[in-house]
Amino acid sequence: MKIDLHTHILPREWPDLDSKYGYGGFVRLDHHKPCCARMMVGGRFFRNINENVWEPTRRIEEMEEAGVSMQVLSTVPVMFSYWAKPADGLDLSRQLNDHIAEVVRDHPTRFTGLGTIPMQDPDLAAAELERCIKELGLRGVEIGTHVDANPDFGRVETLNLDDAALRPVWSTAEELDAGIFVHPWDMLGSERMPKYWLPWLVAMPAETSLAICSMIFGGVFERFPKLRVAFAHGGGSFPFTIGRVDHAFRVRPDVVAAENSVSPRQYLAHNGMPARFYVDSLLHDADALGLLLKLFGAERIAFGSDYPFSLGETQPGKLIESMKLHEKEKEQMFSETVREFLRL
Amino acid sequence: MKIDLHTHILPREWPDLDSKYGYGGFVRLDHHKPCCARMMVGGRFFRNINENVWEPTRRIEEMEEAGVSMQVLSTVPVMFSYWAKPADGLDLSRQLNDHIAEVVRDHPTRFTGLGTIPMQDPDLAAAELERCIKELGLRGVEIGTHVDANPDFGRVETLNLDDAALRPVWSTAEELDAGIFVHPWDMLGSERMPKYWLPWLVAMPAETSLAICSMIFGGVFERFPKLRVAFAHGGGSFPFTIGRVDHAFRVRPDVVAAENSVSPRQYLAHNGMPARFYVDSLLHDADALGLLLKLFGAERIAFGSDYPFSLGETQPGKLIESMKLHEKEKEQMFSETVREFLRL
Repeated sequence: MKIDLHTHILPREWPDLDSKYGYGGFVRLDHHKPCCARMMVGGRFFRNINENVWEPTRRIEEMEEAGVSMQVLSTVPVMFSYWAKPADGLDLSRQLNDHIAEVVRDHPTRFTGLGTIPMQDPDLAAAELERCIKELGLRGVEIGTHVDANPDFGRVETLNLDDAALRPVWSTAEELDAGIFVHPWDMLGSERMPKYWLPWLVAMPAETSLAICSMIFGGVFERFPKLRVAFAHGGGSFPFTIGRVDHAFRVRPDVVAAENSVSPRQYLAHNGMPARFYVDSLLHDADALGLLLKLFGAERIAFGSDYPFSLGETQPGKLIESMKLHEKEKEQMFSETVREFLRL
Repeated sequence: MKIDLHTHILPREWPDLDSKYGYGGFVRLDHHKPCCARMMVGGRFFRNINENVWEPTRRIEEMEEAGVSMQVLSTVPVMFSYWAKPADGLDLSRQLNDHIAEVVRDHPTRFTGLGTIPMQDPDLAAAELERCIKELGLRGVEIGTHVDANPDFGRVETLNLDDAALRPVWSTAEELDAGIFVHPWDMLGSERMPKYWLPWLVAMPAETSLAICSMIFGGVFERFPKLRVAFAHGGGSFPFTIGRVDHAFRVRPDVVAAENSVSPRQYLAHNGMPARFYVDSLLHDADALGLLLKLFGAERIAFGSDYPFSLGETQPGKLIESMKLHEKEKEQMFSETVREFLRL
């Protein structure tokens, strides 16, 4: 049994959002061939995608090939659109969530789903989170590592995940027993990285570490003790830098521990206690995953492949399978962790 | 024998640079107590420092306590001033380099030194590098992870370390057999990190990974096969993300391998070959250092403590000493690697 926590899906088509909302910047699919589409943002090419992004039967064929029993579906992060007007962000979220719910309803043994919510308006986000869980039967939501500023629409500051404004989302997730899957997007410093795909290779891991550090040091896990959060890409650069992060907490509590006096190491596996949050397994490297196991334990690592994108695991599950681990640990990562995280 | 690759020093005083150069933004020391000073940037407080930053005898006492035989001295990265006018950057570099050379001359068994060079003008930088090696007896230079843009002085683009404009520095370092120690500064995305010291905890590791990826994918190590480069803080987030970086190289060579067809893994230890570049040991975590050893081998890891700053190792050398390793590996990291890197 293999359940893939980290997979992305889009509808095959949706209305022209630039026209619908009256301003530009939304994603459009250009179906230039039967198998394939170009994702366009405004007039700008963003990414080539194949039909496995939108076609459930094609996905199921590929799951069969890889031996994956079930996928957890979530939108593609470029769709978050946290920069948009709140009402439009809500409208777009509803379309995407209705689509994911439909795919799950059509193939309930193959797919389960995470919604997207308009984080630019935490009350609307909380309401849509509630709709996702109560009406659509989704298991939680996928959110970004931060909420973009957009001075055009009155938000002058980017919010990190420790921002008090976001508490309605956390409290609603707690009440609904919903999982939160945090995926990097709108990567910091991308303007410094014009070549070699570095926003994906350097900035995404930093975004994720920023999100983890913000939630730890901002005391989010203390304030919302039942909140369940998972971070993509094995927690980004956080696991490898825990020594530096923890050392900073100890030598400069005036700055680092100002809002939460619990050491960052207490959020990792220790003294037989499981880690306080979850990560996926997508590290593409057995030694790195070995370090992750030491820090988080298999109980907090969920198999995730980033299917169907090229930066994902080409043969979903192969890395874990290839490792010398107890079968129990593999089972835990392949299915038990995500079952617990998403209450499947 | 323990040689510390990563230590910072400043002169006790220097001229008022804002006045000397006629514009603001340079660092000033405010000696408000005999033991201590405030580093100020313009009128803004930057950091408290103690006399061990500028006083060689105090440093030697603390080296005795920690069992450190020799320190490699380099300036504090905030002094790089790559944003300044080139002639002023050169003038400041010369002052700092003359000071480090003087400290080394006064205590030749205790200290060796790395200069700083005005990277905003690669020809001036190469000339000062030559002066550092030939006239001052330094062993190389410490540089930043990028060269800042400053539109006020005509540089509209930030340069990463793959930029062709920087080749005069690399070729000069090769000719002079000088080591290059790369230290993160002016951290990307810092504007997104107002709290918890996160520019130091999240953005510094990303800066270093950006520098490593830029030099690999830009083919710098191919073009300058004798160039010796070491990266601070155990290579930042690069080692933990090598799986992702290498996977990207394989699945998207059109983007990632456009300028260099050599796989990133070829730059790490493999098939009995040593890694192509060096890192220091400053990870504050035995498991992370264990992963680093697996990727780079002790031959390419040099003990570094970030003395005398609080984010450095509080007892320089303690982490390596505490690890279960062959004595030979410890010796290698404590002294042999830096001897080779800096031709000591």
